[in-house]
Parts: sequence; structure tokens; C-alpha cells
Amino acid sequence: MGKVRNILFIMADQLRVDYLSCYGHPHLETPNLDRLAGRGVRFDRAYVQAPVCGPSRMSFYTGRTAFSHGATWNFVPLPVGELTLGDYLRPHGMRTALVGKSHMMPDLAGMERVGLSPDGEPGLIISECGFEPYERDDGEHPHPKADPDLPYNRYLRAQGYEGPNPWNDYANSGEGPDGALREGWYMQNAPLAARVAEEHSETAYMTDRALQFLEEQGDAPWCLHLSYIKPHWPYIAPAPYHAMYGHNQILAAVRETRERDDPHPVYGAIMNHNASREFSREEVRAAVIPAYMGLIRQIDDHLGRVFRYLEETGRMDDTMIVFTSDHGDYLGDHWLGEKEFFHEQAVRIPLIVYDPDAAADATRGTADEGFIEAIDLVPTFLEARGIEIPTHIIEGRSALWRLRGGKGEVPDHAYSELDYAFYKARVELGVDPHEARLFMLRTDDWKYVHALGFEPLLFDLRNDPDEFVDLGRDPGYAGFREELHRALFERIGRRKNRTGITTERVQQRTDGAHRHGTLIGYW
Amino acid sequence: MGKVRNILFIMADQLRVDYLSCYGHPHLETPNLDRLAGRGVRFDRAYVQAPVCGPSRMSFYTGRTAFSHGATWNFVPLPVGELTLGDYLRPHGMRTALVGKSHMMPDLAGMERVGLSPDGEPGLIISECGFEPYERDDGEHPHPKADPDLPYNRYLRAQGYEGPNPWNDYANSGEGPDGALREGWYMQNAPLAARVAEEHSETAYMTDRALQFLEEQGDAPWCLHLSYIKPHWPYIAPAPYHAMYGHNQILAAVRETRERDDPHPVYGAIMNHNASREFSREEVRAAVIPAYMGLIRQIDDHLGRVFRYLEETGRMDDTMIVFTSDHGDYLGDHWLGEKEFFHEQAVRIPLIVYDPDAAADATRGTADEGFIEAIDLVPTFLEARGIEIPTHIIEGRSALWRLRGGKGEVPDHAYSELDYAFYKARVELGVDPHEARLFMLRTDDWKYVHALGFEPLLFDLRNDPDEFVDLGRDPGYAGFREELHRALFERIGRRKNRTGITTERVQQRTDGAHRHGTLIGYW
Repeated sequence: MGKVRNILFIMADQLRVDYLSCYGHPHLETPNLDRLAGRGVRFDRAYVQAPVCGPSRMSFYTGRTAFSHGATWNFVPLPVGELTLGDYLRPHGMRTALVGKSHMMPDLAGMERVGLSPDGEPGLIISECGFEPYERDDGEHPHPKADPDLPYNRYLRAQGYEGPNPWNDYANSGEGPDGALREGWYMQNAPLAARVAEEHSETAYMTDRALQFLEEQGDAPWCLHLSYIKPHWPYIAPAPYHAMYGHNQILAAVRETRERDDPHPVYGAIMNHNASREFSREEVRAAVIPAYMGLIRQIDDHLGRVFRYLEETGRMDDTMIVFTSDHGDYLGDHWLGEKEFFHEQAVRIPLIVYDPDAAADATRGTADEGFIEAIDLVPTFLEARGIEIPTHIIEGRSALWRLRGGKGEVPDHAYSELDYAFYKARVELGVDPHEARLFMLRTDDWKYVHALGFEPLLFDLRNDPDEFVDLGRDPGYAGFREELHRALFERIGRRKNRTGITTERVQQRTDGAHRHGTLIGYW
Repeated sequence: MGKVRNILFIMADQLRVDYLSCYGHPHLETPNLDRLAGRGVRFDRAYVQAPVCGPSRMSFYTGRTAFSHGATWNFVPLPVGELTLGDYLRPHGMRTALVGKSHMMPDLAGMERVGLSPDGEPGLIISECGFEPYERDDGEHPHPKADPDLPYNRYLRAQGYEGPNPWNDYANSGEGPDGALREGWYMQNAPLAARVAEEHSETAYMTDRALQFLEEQGDAPWCLHLSYIKPHWPYIAPAPYHAMYGHNQILAAVRETRERDDPHPVYGAIMNHNASREFSREEVRAAVIPAYMGLIRQIDDHLGRVFRYLEETGRMDDTMIVFTSDHGDYLGDHWLGEKEFFHEQAVRIPLIVYDPDAAADATRGTADEGFIEAIDLVPTFLEARGIEIPTHIIEGRSALWRLRGGKGEVPDHAYSELDYAFYKARVELGVDPHEARLFMLRTDDWKYVHALGFEPLLFDLRNDPDEFVDLGRDPGYAGFREELHRALFERIGRRKNRTGITTERVQQRTDGAHRHGTLIGYW
């Protein structure tokens, strides 16, 4: 075992925390991740900064909450001035690359203003949010806008899958009994096998590319973000994973009829979204969830290849490995589909951290039940590599001491937020696009969600762990709401918005009145 | 009278609202500003976004609150991605220039990262916060770091004032009876005449430069930010202004002994600042305030030159004129010196807006008693010029309808905030540099100041208009505090942090699920 030299930062997309065997799934087995958890720490209260891909990922990559970095929803550009993990690691000689999805949207207007091209230097890295795009693929390539030159499409064609968009027509479609193409976009097709050999599927290909990167990198230090597109929709798995699980092996829907009675207006409007309505039907759950499980099992199997490679090359001794997800998936719980609200199914994530350092031996195989947030990863990586943490920019806190049995203060809450400006729900509710905002604070006992312009939501997690009873308008809970509202304000009031000056310089300048002979208020 | 073609945006530095005759000063006469008010609208409840130069100005220039633009205190860089008034006007053919102070600190690290030099194109304009620096001079040039090539110093030398730093030794120093140099940095020297002929003083010189700009510009459209350094310290005026007012013509100190009994911790610590202790002495007030008044009167006289020039050239018919200040000056009120807290003396400012458009005839000479904030100027300018307001970035609201007798919603509060990380008070209180934050909400009846980590301050303005009694810890006012705290949260929660996508695009994308064939949650 040795010091952390490399970082393997693995992310699955839309993977719910309870769909891994090490987090308690009774039927789905994920032996390779279980083994990783056995050698590292399994965080049982890990939360995303926003329960939707784009902003959640930008928080993972910047160490800043969504309304601090500004890319508050999918396809909202990350402002050109935001610094990322790659910006911090690269100057220390670590090649920092991406294989898979980042969901980064470049700030083209901001780049143009400062004269940067997204193809040039440093424009390319900035427009890829700090990652060298070794293999950038966000895994969403429907017909009309498909990039004909997408590397995975080129790869598929080389394997004999012809057409303008084999990503869609093979890797993410099945076949009906009549041989007709049945797109994975339609959930009724989820039980079909994808029209691609397993070894040519997205998960297999991305793993191949990651192994190529590791091979290429040899002994030189690296940070690889291996970011799987699955089990995110289109929900369709290649054989044999498509048929590995039955509808009797899925978790029962967590929902009660009373949740639909007079729900909070925002929750109610999201219940009306198409995905929510469909996932509220058992037929849909029974079709989709087994495919979802197969896709997860497939990722686990391919991670076995990666972990074996690390073992064989000695990299297990000097590589920190993180496995996590960008958010969960309601899968019909609480009468919702997709993510983008604040029940545990959406906002809580799996997080396993393996630290090769001998100092971490004492925590191997343990579970950490303290709160941890997505933004805590960047500072953890920096500290593990001995790089100073820019505390004037990064809002997260290093959790390295929790891996190494050190002393520190475990946070008393987790924070998350959501910009729902882009939802039909926002339009239905008549909310201004700049005021469609939800802010969540989750403590040991409570979950409080402040909705701008509305009453809040409140769940008593001790007595109602499944979050069925919203106490946000119950007069008996006004005192608790006020207390949580204050705690939420204190958290939001501490955003790191003053990024232009280091903490050290602030401290040096604190008694700056005598600077350069300037005398303020002297007689 | 005609349409708004040009904008003259005049700012005095540290000018208290009640030290102008049109705002009620009984002895100080400012006839030119009074005349401007007679032809425009005098706003009686205008507030700065932060009661300190740097962040207040960056809010005036960006239309965004201090913790949104990020330059939260003096010398904190404005992030390279922030857009300013000049960025908005220049593409519409308006030369946008600065004469005087901006207090801009360029984001050199951010510029370096994107490969921009502060001398190049567009680096120069970005590092001058969007202004062409026709004459940039922040008016703070003590010895050791004085720029030997400062244009005003070169000018003074050409007039015969020799030495390495005539700004300091002549324009901002006096002479003792023994002929010895007495620096204006020491307030005991405030009653002396500056060692410079009035026509060579800073205010005269900046006015000359402004007139040169206007002359040079001729008929081509422009926006000029004429930003006087005075009456900001060093408090010292050239003859005859140094002796124009007597200590019996100053306003009585607004303070009561009870304010010192058990004050709010942050207020108490600021009372201990050197400037506060000195200004709490009547001797200091009697020496400084007459000089302060002379400096204001001098500005008014020179503005008379500018307004005459505009009349003579016909520019009064197509130029919108704004006169304001970046914050007030305690001058010993509430046992404080300087600014940087939230009593009316610091946070309220004069604001006079003259609109040449005939549509504004009905409001000429009126007072507007509704709230208005510094960030409302940029959108007012844009609307006056027919330029679309980027509502996804700018937090202020155009007040043009208030000038033109239109219909709209007058805000029910004013908001301001302060980062006191750089104060001795912060160190004394043991507050983390990222948590030294105050947030103010001022409504018709109340002023509420939330201090992170402390109890709030609360003033009942109806019964205690002078803000002597802090009700922040009075149990009888808990309900009001909660209500104001909620209103403050609603304001802060609406910051425009999602600047990368226009409001229009958000609206277009609201039902974006079918975009490019992507089908989310379809059966």
C-alpha cells in the first residue's frame, strides 16, 4: 500500500443508492463494488448538490454548489471563470481525463468575449470543464442531431453495425418478435435485449477506453473520470443482462395514496409530468426496473475488469478510487419518475471511497454514517495529493480525515438545491423563470425544502422515514420550520462568492489601513 | 427636448445624502444640483448595494448585487466573466468612458487563465470594468506606491507643482503656519487650504477632462462616467472652499449614549475602529465636516460648468444625467466614522435623474419616495436607449417608467449587504473570513440586518427613525424578525446566478423533453 498518486473517479448515471448489494438490495448483486466497499469506506449519507445531471456534475467537478457555479440545470453553460478538478490537478503533473459523460455545456458567449475558441488552447479544456476529453460521450444521441462522427458510432460501424446512428439503432434499441426495430426511448421496449453484442455495448466500450487510457498512461500520474452513461435511460440492456432479473426482484414502490391528497404545489405539478405518470403504473416499473438492474450489474462486471487491471499493474497501491452517481431515480416512488425532487430516492447517492494509503487501514470495510456532499470530493482529492485547497473558491470540505481515522467535525446537515425553471411544472404554476428554485436542508431528523414563493415542505424523518407526510403547512410544526429555515439561510449565506482573493490574502489585508501610507480616520 | 442619446453618469465619492441643499441641508448650498433636481426626479429612498466603495461601484456598473458579482470589498477583483454597462452600450455604438474613480480591481488570475493581457484587446476594457479609461484615477496615491506617471501628477508638475507625488504633497496637503507640509491624511489638517490653486485641484482637473471628452466626442453618442474622487478623504479642500463653511454650519451628530450600551457585537466592534473613535470626538467633526462641505460645494460649482456646456452644445436635449454617490459617510453619527454599516447615513444615497425625453415632463421637479437601488441604474440606462435588458444577468429593474409617469410596481424594500472579512472587527470577533457577512433589508417600517452567526439587528423606523434602539434581541419583536428574515431570504434566493442562458431560451426550452428525439419517460 502506498501514497495516493492517481485518482480513479467513477460515476454511474442515475444510479439509485439502494440498487447495489452493498447498500442492501436483496436481489441485485454487485460483487465488485461490494469488494471495493470492503476495502474502502461506504458513505451511507451522501448527497448530491442538485438532483439532476448537469448541475450535480458541475458541483462534483468544481467543489461548488449549483447556484454558486451557475450551471443550475442541464444545458446551462458553466461560466468560463469557474475552476474545476482538472484546473487544480493539472499544474501538479496529473493528466486529468474524461471517459464518458460530463454533461458540460461550454460558455461559448463568455469564451467569445475573452477571445477563446472552444477548439484552441486553453479553450478546449475549459469547454470540457477541465477534463481532457479522452472519450467524451454524453450518451444521448437521438436521430436528427446525432454526430455522424461520434467515436462510439464509428466504433460500432467498424464492428458491423451500419447506419447513420448505430448508437440509437443498435446499442439503444431492441427488436420486436417481427424483427422490427423497437427504440429504447419507449419504456415498453425495456425488456428487450439491445441489438448489440454485450462486448460492443456502451458500458463495455467505455471500459475499454478507460483501460486504454490507463495502459497509455503507464507510470505517469493521472486522474481519470470514468463516467458511465448507464443505468440512465434509454433503459435497455444487452443480453444477457436484459433478462438477468425478473419483475419479482424489484423493490416495491415506496408511495402512499395520501401523498396525492393536496400535495405541495411544486410536488403536485411534478407528479403531473409525463415520466411521473408513467412510472406510477406498475406495468412500467415491471418493464423498466429489471433492465435498470441489468445495466447496473453490467457496470459492476466491467468494473471488475478495471479493478483487476489495477491489481495486476500495482496501481491498486497508489490509486484512490471513488465510485458514486450523479443522482438517483424515483422509478415510481412517491408517484414520480426520473429525479429532480428531494426525496431520498433522488438526492441520496452511493459513495464508496477506497484510499490506498496505509493510514486508511483502520476504516477499511466500514460504513460512515455522517453526512457528506458531492462538493466534498474535490477537496478530498486535493488533500490526498497534498495540494493546497483553495478555500476561497471550494465550498466542500475534505473528508480525508474520515477515511484515515482522524479528527474533525462531521457536518450536521446535507444541502441540495434545484432550479426547476425548465419544467412544465414551472409554467403550470406560473412561476417566473428566475424564481423557480428549491433549497433543501436535510438534518438527522428533518428534511426541509424551501420553495421560493410557496410554503415549504417538511418531513419528520425519525417518525416518517419514508417521507410520506409533508408537515410544511402543519401549524404544529411552525417552530421547527423556523429553526430549519434559519439553518438553511446560514448555509446559503456562506456561499463562496468572493472567489477573486485567497483566504490568506484576506487575512493579510485585514489590518490594511496603513497600507502604502493610506491613513483612514487618523487625527 | 428629445430622445436619450447620451448618458452622463456622475458620481461623487462618499457623499452623504443630507449634505446637499436639495436634500435639505440648511447651510450647504448646491445650486447646480438643485437645478438638476428641479428638471429631473429626486429619489428620496435610494440605496447602495454595499456601503463601501468597491462593491457598491461594481454593483452600479454591473446591475448586480455584491455577492452576485463577487467583488465584495475594495480590492477584490471583479471576475473576468462579469458584464458591465460598457459591455452593454458599446455594441450599440456608444463610446463608454470613465473620467475619475472606478475602484475596479482586475481579475488578473482569471485573465491569465484565458490568455488575456490587461493591456491588450479586450483585456484593457475588461480590466477597467467595461470603461474606456479616458482618465482613470482612483484618487489614492500615497507616497511609496505612487505612480510616477499618474496623469494628474504629470499635469500638476506641468503647472509647477514639483516632486515625485504632487497629488499627495500639493493637492492633498496643506501648510502649517510655519510653512511645513501638513498631510491631508491627518484629519487635524482638514481646515487648512490644500496647497494647490483651485483650478488645478482634483475636482477641477477631472471636470476639465470630462469637458475635453465631450468636446472630442462631438455629435457621436456617448456614455461618460464622471466619477469625482471627492468629498472622500483625504478631507482637504483648496481655497476658497476650505474656509467656506464654519463648524457651526455642520449637522449635529446623530447619536445617543444608549447606543453604546451592549451594542450588537458587530456594531460594537466597528465602533472600536480607529475612524469611529476619532469621529466620535467633536473636535474631529468640527475640523473635518466644514472641509467636507467645501469639497461638495466645489463639485457643485464644477458641475455648473458641465451643465452649461451641455446647454450651450444642445446636449441637454439628448443626454440623460444621473447624479449619485457610492455610499454615505457616518461623520461621527452613531459613534461611527467612515461608512461600512447600515444606518441611513451610510447606505442611503442622493440620486437625481434628469431625462431629456418629453415623456418625462410630468415628473420634472418631483420627488420619488419609492425605494430604488444602485442596480436599477444599468437597466434604466438600457431601456432609455432602447436596448434589451438581459434579465438573466441584471438583478436591478428599470426605473424609466417612474421618470415618465408610467405604471409599474415600486419595490417594497431596499437590499444591501456587506462583507466585513477585511475589518479588524472581524478578527476581534473571531469570525471566519468567509462568514463575515451582513445582509440588510429596509422596508417602509423596518430595517433588518442579518449577521451570519449572530443575532440580527432590527430598527423600528416608524417609531425610531434615527435608529437608536436595536430591537434585534428584544423578545417582543420575534415575530417581526421572523417575517423580515423570510423576506430577506426570498430576496437573496432570487440572485441571478444562472447567467449563462437567456430568459427567452429558458422559456423556449421549458418543454424541451421532445428535443432532438429524446423521449423521457414515454411508454
